[in-house]
Amino acid sequence: MVSDLARAESLIGSIPDYPEPGVIFRDITPLLADAAALRTSIDALIAPFAGGFDVVAGIEARGFLLAGAAAIAAGAGLVPIRKAGKLPRPAASVAYALEYGTAEIEMHDDIAPATRVLLMDDVLATGGTIAAARELVAGLGGTVVGTAVLLEIDALRGRDALGDAPLHAVFHI
Amino acid sequence: MVSDLARAESLIGSIPDYPEPGVIFRDITPLLADAAALRTSIDALIAPFAGGFDVVAGIEARGFLLAGAAAIAAGAGLVPIRKAGKLPRPAASVAYALEYGTAEIEMHDDIAPATRVLLMDDVLATGGTIAAARELVAGLGGTVVGTAVLLEIDALRGRDALGDAPLHAVFHI
Repeated sequence: MVSDLARAESLIGSIPDYPEPGVIFRDITPLLADAAALRTSIDALIAPFAGGFDVVAGIEARGFLLAGAAAIAAGAGLVPIRKAGKLPRPAASVAYALEYGTAEIEMHDDIAPATRVLLMDDVLATGGTIAAARELVAGLGGTVVGTAVLLEIDALRGRDALGDAPLHAVFHI
Repeated sequence: MVSDLARAESLIGSIPDYPEPGVIFRDITPLLADAAALRTSIDALIAPFAGGFDVVAGIEARGFLLAGAAAIAAGAGLVPIRKAGKLPRPAASVAYALEYGTAEIEMHDDIAPATRVLLMDDVLATGGTIAAARELVAGLGGTVVGTAVLLEIDALRGRDALGDAPLHAVFHI
């Protein structure tokens, strides 16, 4: 398992100066494209929360890839958290600050009360999106049992912004 | 199996006048949120292609949810086909016509030669996006073994635009 995970981690690429000069972008697409690395990584992503959630809520867009995979691996349902203006039914929204400007995410407002939600995204950077997603789910009456990300960028200290709620990262950089 | 599928189908919602007046939007999110309906639908989505593909290529954004799920169910890899400007590495692109204007999709250009690709999206409408995705994969040397969608809107005749290549829809409307 550990060596399988190490192999999966080795497939994460680093793209210098993307999307802007000075930033190193972590590219998970080579890991996703490898069937064995994908399975190993998804199993590791959900393991700490096994049996403890009803749905996986994926954050658009890369979070959708992982959340779909995790939902099937766990036998759970799948809920999209979308960028503003994309959902067809009444939705709740939360706005949050980006480095420049703001962003807004939305979720349909009819989640069953006390649904146990595992939040999922590809990367934890500053934590702004994930904090907003937690606020969104909690505001609709869902219970966020935890957040799982494939990769945590430790230097950005996003974990500090998220308080005490369980946060699991498969890989760190 | 059939009755499980019928139950799953019953969860697909219809939203009148979305995203514009006169259009009925088919909302798959209630199906996705139901763990049993999701599993049944994903199994039906990939069944005709079992053992015949190496990766599932999901089309952004709702196709990502299904492709992630299908990749794990099938033991395959997962490749994103993204809207233009979202991929960090060199990518090929194909532009295609929409009702108003054009759109463009992209895929990283380093897919291994002869990789067997199952294309996946949520809905087949006019077929423009899927035709472009097929052109994109084939142009990069991949082999499109088929296309799987959850829902085909038969009246829009998208199937006719796609020629003879295998196309599988779990549900029809």
